[in-house]
Amino acid sequence: MAKTGNAISPARSADYAAWYQEAVRAADLAENAPVRGCMVIKPWGYALWENIQAILDGMLKQTGHRNAYFPLLIPLSYLEKEAEHVDGFAKECAVVTHHRLVKDAGGGLVPDKDAILPEPYIIRPTSETIIGAVFASWVQTHRDLPLLINQWANVLRWEMRTRLFLRTIEFLWQEGHTVHETSDDALAETLKILKLYTDFVQNYLAIPVVSGVKSPSERFAGAVETYSIEAMMGDRKALQAGTSQFLGQNFARASGIQFRNRTGAAEFGWTTSWGVSTRLIGAIVMTHGDDNGIVLPPRITPMHVVILPVMRGDDADAVVFEYADSVAAQLRDATFDGRSILVEIDKREAGGGHKQWDWIKKGVPIRIEVGPRDIEHDAVTLFRRDEETRRSKKVARPELASLVVATLDEIQKGCFDRALAHRDTNTRHISKKSDFVEFFELPKSGNREIYGGFALSPWCGSPACEEWAKTTLKVTIRCIPEETSADRREPCVVCGQPGAAVPLFARSY
Amino acid sequence: MAKTGNAISPARSADYAAWYQEAVRAADLAENAPVRGCMVIKPWGYALWENIQAILDGMLKQTGHRNAYFPLLIPLSYLEKEAEHVDGFAKECAVVTHHRLVKDAGGGLVPDKDAILPEPYIIRPTSETIIGAVFASWVQTHRDLPLLINQWANVLRWEMRTRLFLRTIEFLWQEGHTVHETSDDALAETLKILKLYTDFVQNYLAIPVVSGVKSPSERFAGAVETYSIEAMMGDRKALQAGTSQFLGQNFARASGIQFRNRTGAAEFGWTTSWGVSTRLIGAIVMTHGDDNGIVLPPRITPMHVVILPVMRGDDADAVVFEYADSVAAQLRDATFDGRSILVEIDKREAGGGHKQWDWIKKGVPIRIEVGPRDIEHDAVTLFRRDEETRRSKKVARPELASLVVATLDEIQKGCFDRALAHRDTNTRHISKKSDFVEFFELPKSGNREIYGGFALSPWCGSPACEEWAKTTLKVTIRCIPEETSADRREPCVVCGQPGAAVPLFARSY
Repeated sequence: MAKTGNAISPARSADYAAWYQEAVRAADLAENAPVRGCMVIKPWGYALWENIQAILDGMLKQTGHRNAYFPLLIPLSYLEKEAEHVDGFAKECAVVTHHRLVKDAGGGLVPDKDAILPEPYIIRPTSETIIGAVFASWVQTHRDLPLLINQWANVLRWEMRTRLFLRTIEFLWQEGHTVHETSDDALAETLKILKLYTDFVQNYLAIPVVSGVKSPSERFAGAVETYSIEAMMGDRKALQAGTSQFLGQNFARASGIQFRNRTGAAEFGWTTSWGVSTRLIGAIVMTHGDDNGIVLPPRITPMHVVILPVMRGDDADAVVFEYADSVAAQLRDATFDGRSILVEIDKREAGGGHKQWDWIKKGVPIRIEVGPRDIEHDAVTLFRRDEETRRSKKVARPELASLVVATLDEIQKGCFDRALAHRDTNTRHISKKSDFVEFFELPKSGNREIYGGFALSPWCGSPACEEWAKTTLKVTIRCIPEETSADRREPCVVCGQPGAAVPLFARSY
Repeated sequence: MAKTGNAISPARSADYAAWYQEAVRAADLAENAPVRGCMVIKPWGYALWENIQAILDGMLKQTGHRNAYFPLLIPLSYLEKEAEHVDGFAKECAVVTHHRLVKDAGGGLVPDKDAILPEPYIIRPTSETIIGAVFASWVQTHRDLPLLINQWANVLRWEMRTRLFLRTIEFLWQEGHTVHETSDDALAETLKILKLYTDFVQNYLAIPVVSGVKSPSERFAGAVETYSIEAMMGDRKALQAGTSQFLGQNFARASGIQFRNRTGAAEFGWTTSWGVSTRLIGAIVMTHGDDNGIVLPPRITPMHVVILPVMRGDDADAVVFEYADSVAAQLRDATFDGRSILVEIDKREAGGGHKQWDWIKKGVPIRIEVGPRDIEHDAVTLFRRDEETRRSKKVARPELASLVVATLDEIQKGCFDRALAHRDTNTRHISKKSDFVEFFELPKSGNREIYGGFALSPWCGSPACEEWAKTTLKVTIRCIPEETSADRREPCVVCGQPGAAVPLFARSY
């Protein structure tokens, strides 16, 4: 292995945005597609998504939700039904206008003028309207409620500036859609999911989050309340990692979701919607990644351990391979987090150093090197992704499985603890306007990407003060955490009028 | 339970097409969406799809394939690259022309004339062209091969006549795309997947299939050879349950997938593609369904056993529920096909007969009724979906788990054996033209839906004879099974010229 330098370049401190692109590329997670603003999710990135899906899907099923699938295409008229919803999404809709291609005079393909759709379709940017139309026939009486449905799907939003995982025109997500008998039930569901997302992101992705309600200007288009979980990335910006919406009766009214209530009267249902997306992969990269690339928390990684046989291209290799196989078998018999330890052996013909760096960049928690000398001592050489790259430890075979399990636990905990410490170090309770400005103002020199952080600051509740922060400092209210909303009532950090809440202010992705 | 009559209407023999729609509806598998030609896959149908995905995905990973995700949108110019491919798909492409909506003078939404895409996109009808463009950069040398990629995705094909699961504008599928160093390697992959599909469909879905190569007229647009698996449905029509394509260098040439081969020369890759879709759910319905609705093979059903507590609305119910819970726990401790037996207890307030019929229509393999008298004898009352609806058996608790496991095995085997017997009964080796015509000719009276079957008949290989069968009898060559292609060389069943192969002729979905 190389003795100096980092696996990827630039370093985070030099250019965080460029570091992110390079970390994603070096780990082989995804790449830009030859379609504007879209991405190709490569096998290593998709394996992460499959793990996210499997775990979250299990949690949703445990809480009574069932999966279903609804159309990709939504008639234009559906979008028009909810006035705020339209305003939120009309600007970013891909529109399908024809259902056939023909050859033109020059032999090139063009949309067929004789195959114009009577009513154009949009490709779903989110599915409240089409699912609402279907739910209208599924829900008849209070006995049909609650209706708890989830969908795993692709969606499109025509964004102008895109970045792998964080903001792409097409992305993958799950979207939950539920209908309830009462406002209280729907609100309870909204908060139950917010809690479920918090548990998932913190316990599996090892990303600490702040949860709370959005300010009116940041609400999902058409929602009564939007709740979110917000995480601090390595550059101190906030990333919205999941949202849960209480939709009141807005969408039920727009879609005609009506039920006979317990008194026999017709009533509109109370609905919720909520989702997380492939954006979470970007959050993993920017929360745990270091100057050698990504670091994968053991509870979400597609591979816990990679075994690297020391190969010399001679007869000894067969012995080393056999030994590597037995180490792999030993580890696969052990259990981490309820599943067999995931092990691969890298038998590629390539330099040992090159292969070490490959797996460092891919973020695999543990690398185990086995060579003739290890075999002599019935031992292996173990490297941890969360330690200095050259640091290693000889481990005797009898202790190996239990040590690997304990190490995976330590790495998982370490990921969370480091992220939490980073966030806490960069979170301030700020009451004075001058401090607020100083905290967020772009530094005149040095690294202009990494500054600021999370500020918990009193706010009077006026859109004007929120807008001032946005315009002047590029800072938005990420959410209003519940625990602080009642107990601090200092004057608004912007205007000095009496405070109404203490939101989390931050720059954000 | 009702003493007479079937759970659904009409019977298969009265109107097979109407029976199919009703079987799907009564089982709550899917429904027509409020978008032309599209479907909503309801939770029970989607749970079947999830099982199909989980099993098939495991088989594909076992054979070295990895999942990835590629864009939904394909630039028009990509489709133009492969001439035959264009001709096959241009007529059924949904075209995206705008990326924004605006309000018109009347306040309604219309595609924004200022947001016309410079080049229109089509929604993927299949992904050879877009994946090929990406593979072109992934493949550099022979060391990058084989490249074995699979994608789970939605696709759109603008069909004019649609039917739930069997032919819908949008459907869900997996599409495999691989690149190989040699023609032999690619052909071997094509056939390996054909075998894998055969194993999956026969062993899990309990559907016997005939596999073979397509005639040139039925090939996938742009393929060198298309192979398929064909199953006989309850009405004796064939259903193509999966295809595997050997694409030669056609798509590699169109997309520029080139590699440095072992001699250092640049060469185009040899590619394959293959897929199965939500259509398989239609195949399950039409292979195993009876006049009471669908029947689910135990290895694919989302639920093995439903427990129906006999409820009287009095204090005794609590005792029955407790007993039902202990029966469920007993069964969940047992294993069928490598997983814990899947059990649900139906505690809904509804008549016992109504609930029995509900689960019959949903095709659950085993129903277990528990009431006060069962509790007295420490027993349960067991019903099998593949037996007459009222027939039941008292089973003592100590024997219950092992009996359920054995019964599930029997039902799985029974599903396959019945389907195989049905197919064999309705498959003929026909050499004489008059017999061929009689076999396929629409009966003058009686059930005009159910006639014919599979004919293995010699064919000279000319498109004219194939076309004659299609035009005159609405019969196509489904595939040319390998085992018969060499051994029978009788004169062509249509023209009497020397035969070149013995294809499987049938009407089809």
